[in-house]
Amino acid sequence: MTAYDQLQARFHRIGVIDGALSMLGWDEAVMMPDGGSETRAEQVATLRQIQHEMLTDPAVADLIGAAGGLDLDPWQAANLHEMERRRRHATALPADLVGALARATARCEMVWRTARKNDDFATFKAPFATVLELSREAQAAKGAAFGIDGYDALLDQYEPGMTAERLDGLFGELAQFLPDLLDRAMALQDERPAPLPPSGHFPIEAQRDLSVRLMRALGFDFDHGRLDVSHHPFTGGIPDDVRLTTRYREDEFAQAMMATLHETGHALYERGLPAAWRHQPVGEARGMALHESQSLLVEMQLARGPAFIGFVTPLVREAFKVEGGPFTADNLGRWLTRVSPGLIRVEADEVCYPAHVMLRYRLEQALLSGDLPIDDLPAAWADGMMTLLGVEVPDDRDGCLQDIHWPGGAFGYFPTYTLGAMAAAQLFQAARTAIPDLDDRVGRGDFAPLFAWLGANVHGRAASATTDEILTQATGAPLSADAFRRHLEARYAGG
Amino acid sequence: MTAYDQLQARFHRIGVIDGALSMLGWDEAVMMPDGGSETRAEQVATLRQIQHEMLTDPAVADLIGAAGGLDLDPWQAANLHEMERRRRHATALPADLVGALARATARCEMVWRTARKNDDFATFKAPFATVLELSREAQAAKGAAFGIDGYDALLDQYEPGMTAERLDGLFGELAQFLPDLLDRAMALQDERPAPLPPSGHFPIEAQRDLSVRLMRALGFDFDHGRLDVSHHPFTGGIPDDVRLTTRYREDEFAQAMMATLHETGHALYERGLPAAWRHQPVGEARGMALHESQSLLVEMQLARGPAFIGFVTPLVREAFKVEGGPFTADNLGRWLTRVSPGLIRVEADEVCYPAHVMLRYRLEQALLSGDLPIDDLPAAWADGMMTLLGVEVPDDRDGCLQDIHWPGGAFGYFPTYTLGAMAAAQLFQAARTAIPDLDDRVGRGDFAPLFAWLGANVHGRAASATTDEILTQATGAPLSADAFRRHLEARYAGG
Repeated sequence: MTAYDQLQARFHRIGVIDGALSMLGWDEAVMMPDGGSETRAEQVATLRQIQHEMLTDPAVADLIGAAGGLDLDPWQAANLHEMERRRRHATALPADLVGALARATARCEMVWRTARKNDDFATFKAPFATVLELSREAQAAKGAAFGIDGYDALLDQYEPGMTAERLDGLFGELAQFLPDLLDRAMALQDERPAPLPPSGHFPIEAQRDLSVRLMRALGFDFDHGRLDVSHHPFTGGIPDDVRLTTRYREDEFAQAMMATLHETGHALYERGLPAAWRHQPVGEARGMALHESQSLLVEMQLARGPAFIGFVTPLVREAFKVEGGPFTADNLGRWLTRVSPGLIRVEADEVCYPAHVMLRYRLEQALLSGDLPIDDLPAAWADGMMTLLGVEVPDDRDGCLQDIHWPGGAFGYFPTYTLGAMAAAQLFQAARTAIPDLDDRVGRGDFAPLFAWLGANVHGRAASATTDEILTQATGAPLSADAFRRHLEARYAGG
Repeated sequence: MTAYDQLQARFHRIGVIDGALSMLGWDEAVMMPDGGSETRAEQVATLRQIQHEMLTDPAVADLIGAAGGLDLDPWQAANLHEMERRRRHATALPADLVGALARATARCEMVWRTARKNDDFATFKAPFATVLELSREAQAAKGAAFGIDGYDALLDQYEPGMTAERLDGLFGELAQFLPDLLDRAMALQDERPAPLPPSGHFPIEAQRDLSVRLMRALGFDFDHGRLDVSHHPFTGGIPDDVRLTTRYREDEFAQAMMATLHETGHALYERGLPAAWRHQPVGEARGMALHESQSLLVEMQLARGPAFIGFVTPLVREAFKVEGGPFTADNLGRWLTRVSPGLIRVEADEVCYPAHVMLRYRLEQALLSGDLPIDDLPAAWADGMMTLLGVEVPDDRDGCLQDIHWPGGAFGYFPTYTLGAMAAAQLFQAARTAIPDLDDRVGRGDFAPLFAWLGANVHGRAASATTDEILTQATGAPLSADAFRRHLEARYAGG
């Protein structure tokens, strides 16, 4: 066996354990009774520790060094690169820091749940200060290990190769046009009749049937996955058994339908990863920006556009035995593209969403650098929301306590949501160019050409190239805000 | 850390992985779509291999040797004994034999599914010959490792310390009285009016509600477990998150109810294992005989007895909105204790069940020794069924192809079903002596004293003592057929 072959065997094992961990994570969110949580945490910690030992085995570093001198094909070379990236992230942190971070984030998440409910920032401060301090240590250690800026090393965990410099440029572009675009969108919206809320009683069984029907239409294969219910919709499992979830309310159908469509975008990416590279680092999704691009491409670009609304309206009517009134394509279309600045990120429309992300991006850098003391976070949050969206923040519950990311130590994650929105617009525009009759096909419920194009240009490439390489080859340009701007202009500001 | 402490840390890891494997096994049977099976098999094989490497690490043998010289308390000493048993089972088989067996049984199980459906013994023969040949090698290797007879080493996998000599004695006792008892039971049954079948339409939701109500009554805690549906009912999961399953038919309620009660017996054993010894070998269930005793104690001893029938009849009436006719306690009692020799083990009543087990016990020994060529198995099966139960075997589907155990290589497992039936009778009799008003309490739905007694005498003892020690301390005698005989006489042969 060559050094490379030995590495493939070692990483195969690590990748198979990733899959087991993913199934356990799905079970925890969807099936597990509360009383199982302590042992589940032990199972996860044990398997992670075993993976960590495998990754930090000095033999791995030696084999990676030796494999670098071999004649590898491009996928093998990319795989080797991803192996080294994963190894370096694992070895960067001393074991005691990993343990301290795990304990501190578990404790901070627990305190956060109650603190958020009670709007109690004071109680949250101390455990969050610990998470922040340890995250600073991790930032420094990872920066040193990669020889790059520490915050860039945190970004690399979620979006490999992303830097604050690049983000500043991309978000700077957004900041140039979004405020004006939002004003114009609101003005245009005010000129038109307000959409009628599609309210009523929507039995959960019927909502589930509609979800399944839409998933099948998009190409989801229930022989390789499931749809279940969880508190927060997510996509888990593994490429050959994708587990996605949604959540239902009986007085509303659009939220569950959109959540299902969003997760189906994630699911089809996972399902479309190349079977030949299962359980290898290069066979995984490229990063969170492209992953989010696939969910937003389905939920925002595709499903809130007129062709899809035309396709789905009769299905909605049939599913819930409703007609007319709010249940026309025109009304549903306007309902699903309402623009309304608000407090909550996860409820934001696509015009307002980037402001939520840019605020968090700026604040988390200031928190990590120490420029923003924790005591000043609520005021900085309120200032930012007023400046960016003109929204008054009445309390911390719906302000700086609304997200689990920071209590969980996930610094560097938020930007990927908006990078995903940009990439989604860019990819959807390229797909429309490549498939001239795309709208007609979507209107008829024929999604095969769209997903064949995404399969060839995104899903099937896995981590064999960088996000920018994948986007450049698929769309002619690296990640940029241009297509996103054009999309928002066209949909919300009258072109 | 002493040698013993180091072993506890190592086996803790192994035990935590056992728990992860158990959850993955539950998911496979209950949730997983077919398309996930290949990767799931890889996940399981990888985790098992990691455990195997941990167990066969030479350091473990050294530590066990060193720990033998330490001053250990009785639970620690028992734990050390179980560690060595597990280590020896793991090291007994060379790695290539383990791999060959895994492949051969997977293939044979696959062929068996089709062969059974098509009543096609000819196709089954070749893959089964491979399983049998490799099982002979395993038998020889395990016998050598333990310094005992090979078949006894196979028995030890499921019922530690059990031997063929002991089984011959116990089964010999059964053979003395069962044929006559069966004749008398059938004659008595013929004298009485045949019970009316409790047929009708039983909505699955109502059956599930009844199952949950009975589980709660018996003490099952849904904060530490779930009830789901699978093709074959089973109990999986871990002590803090027990996953049990049943299956429903809409035209019948008793089978699902009895399956749920059976699995609840298993589940309460798991749940009652001592929390202080989680993830250690000594903290696991003692063996399959006591495990089956707990399910049969609930399903057979308790739930088919008049006190329970008196308790459950009004609940059945309420659940399905039925009354009178077949739904009287007297009729349900006779329905649930019908005796009827038949072809299928899993459908057998408790008078006939041991014959099914004794036949398999005799035949599997003959298969392993080579005294019974595979070609002669169908004829030997038919002969045995005629001799033991007077039943004509029309085909192999409902004959020697009915069970998955042999295709799966589980030789030495079948006897534990009947050992469990004996132990159940013995324990239930002792519980009735210890709790003089047990019948009154059961009639009122008060099961707390029974399960407190089982918790103290069986569940909480885990693997800290042998099956015989546990039974002797709980009932005054080691495992024997006496109580089982008295129980069958009393219930089926008029005392």
